[in-house]
Amino acid sequence: MRKTFNFSAGPAVLPEEVLLEAKEEIYDYRGSGMSVMEMSHRSKLFDDIIQETESDLRDILGIPANYKVLFQQGGATLQFAAVPMNLMKNRVADYIVTGQWAKKAYQEGQIYGTANKIATSEDKTFSYIPDCSDLPVSPDADYVYICENNTIYGTKYKKLPNTKGKILVSDVSSCFLSEPADITKYGVMYGGVQKNIGPAGMVISIIREDLITDDVLPGTPTLMKWKTQADAGSLYNTPNCWCIYICGKVFKWIKKNGGLTAMKEKNEKKAAILYDFLDSSSLFKGTVAREDRSLMNVPFVTGNADLDAKFVKESTAEGLLNLKGHRSVGGMRASIYNAMPIEGVETLVAFMKKFEEDNQ
Amino acid sequence: MRKTFNFSAGPAVLPEEVLLEAKEEIYDYRGSGMSVMEMSHRSKLFDDIIQETESDLRDILGIPANYKVLFQQGGATLQFAAVPMNLMKNRVADYIVTGQWAKKAYQEGQIYGTANKIATSEDKTFSYIPDCSDLPVSPDADYVYICENNTIYGTKYKKLPNTKGKILVSDVSSCFLSEPADITKYGVMYGGVQKNIGPAGMVISIIREDLITDDVLPGTPTLMKWKTQADAGSLYNTPNCWCIYICGKVFKWIKKNGGLTAMKEKNEKKAAILYDFLDSSSLFKGTVAREDRSLMNVPFVTGNADLDAKFVKESTAEGLLNLKGHRSVGGMRASIYNAMPIEGVETLVAFMKKFEEDNQ
Repeated sequence: MRKTFNFSAGPAVLPEEVLLEAKEEIYDYRGSGMSVMEMSHRSKLFDDIIQETESDLRDILGIPANYKVLFQQGGATLQFAAVPMNLMKNRVADYIVTGQWAKKAYQEGQIYGTANKIATSEDKTFSYIPDCSDLPVSPDADYVYICENNTIYGTKYKKLPNTKGKILVSDVSSCFLSEPADITKYGVMYGGVQKNIGPAGMVISIIREDLITDDVLPGTPTLMKWKTQADAGSLYNTPNCWCIYICGKVFKWIKKNGGLTAMKEKNEKKAAILYDFLDSSSLFKGTVAREDRSLMNVPFVTGNADLDAKFVKESTAEGLLNLKGHRSVGGMRASIYNAMPIEGVETLVAFMKKFEEDNQ
Repeated sequence: MRKTFNFSAGPAVLPEEVLLEAKEEIYDYRGSGMSVMEMSHRSKLFDDIIQETESDLRDILGIPANYKVLFQQGGATLQFAAVPMNLMKNRVADYIVTGQWAKKAYQEGQIYGTANKIATSEDKTFSYIPDCSDLPVSPDADYVYICENNTIYGTKYKKLPNTKGKILVSDVSSCFLSEPADITKYGVMYGGVQKNIGPAGMVISIIREDLITDDVLPGTPTLMKWKTQADAGSLYNTPNCWCIYICGKVFKWIKKNGGLTAMKEKNEKKAAILYDFLDSSSLFKGTVAREDRSLMNVPFVTGNADLDAKFVKESTAEGLLNLKGHRSVGGMRASIYNAMPIEGVETLVAFMKKFEEDNQ
């Protein structure tokens, strides 16, 4: 066991077991005489890896047969363009802007058509999720877009918006596989894997089959047309093989540890330890509306910038890493993804208690 | 030492030393308590890695100060679109089509404007490089495009084309860092790293500064505008951190082993061992015009498909991996990138000699 706990928002902590297995195999994958980094993506060996990775993901999330799974490069950022390129038939889309990433997606949408901001929480530094039960969804909107968990601000949709029959597109980067999800409610669910799943350099998209067509906007790069990669089983060109391999190991780790129901339970338990302390603390406080709190990203402040800086410095020295908050919120942020053990959160809270006593 | 030699065309063999170092560091990078896969791309630790990687690359290739280096996702395939999106101001470009990848780039260029095929070697299954000393370069061409080493067909430009003053754009994926290059002759040199440099999932572009502007085609995704990544030091969004880290190790390995002059010398020596045998063999023959032979990819055939299949089967059993040729050429192909030791080529030729004796 390493003696540190890594609260980075992403790239982020991976399960110990996964790292140790990768270490064992990195030089010679199961007697093949090759590292996974050296394998042809068209070889039988790698085909087994990618097939098993997809099949385990389907199993974990309960992905219906009429949804395709794509492993693509370019992160969520490239999907900000790919979404309108593939879906904006009427050149109209509605965006709910609950943070920096939703805003970037909304701005990218404007390149390709009329992107409407139908709700936002920017008035209070994105510290809550707006009521989305009866929004003015555009009659000709090609989709309604959300960022489901807001990494920077620590909010999460506890209920999906009422899209009034329009396709829901959701960026789930920072809550991917943190709890069960009903895929049938989504047209497109996608996320960068570098927060809750694997190393950086890949985005996984789960897309309803009928939304994958040749009818894309003029000027769409061949590789960004979802149909290109759907038809090629994500192997139109060389994918991020190493990332697929590590994600595959994480999926097996999730299965072995009880699947998404167990993940949710553990994540709720970890988050409760931290939020309960924040609610009772005389020094620290959370920054998010209680009902919209994320299970994954927990921002908190002391209200004193010097004290925040002291906390970050001293916690780092104790092996509690990467607790500095994002500059747009300030203070601290603890990202407590699937791979963060309960012990990590307990150690953090114990340290916070001691810091509170020492700095009253 | 592993007991195999991996002749894969890409992803391909990496230096033993690099793999062993990565194995040592994968669980806990230099006492940081984190794997490189778990580090924030905005951390000081990772910043040191990416800065050193770029600086070593600049050093090895002698990249002038007025060229930017970008680490991007999406492979060469996404650059097939990014090149016209960023450069096609007149909506005209000239392509020299010497293989499948140049052809794909040429076809992608047609999405964005008039792409002219000003020369091709398709008449003879791309087995040679056309004379490019006096081609009908279009007066208003925004650039002239080549694929400098053709992985599938085993050809390489020994002399760059006369572009008549137009910008040269070159895809060097399969000959990247195999020998010294004069960067000033290029407007854009780019390549996927998964052949001669590192694991899959990244393309490195070396672009003359004045070609990086806000004046891109309408509809260009923000992430594909070179200026976005140039201004952000390749960190506009989360990059493929693990790939950058491994490439950095390969650059250090190249420096330690004498740089590109030494790489070229070793690559010429390896290629000579194989080509000399092919020229003297009564069973095997090379498929490429002698003057255009690649130092990196060596296709060869027996002329008998059954015998080819037997060769591939028996060589694999001997630990000589991935020698099956691409379906468009048939037979065999040995990719002998920088990381392939001379011993690997000697072992291959010894096996070929024995196979020839046994199958006369």
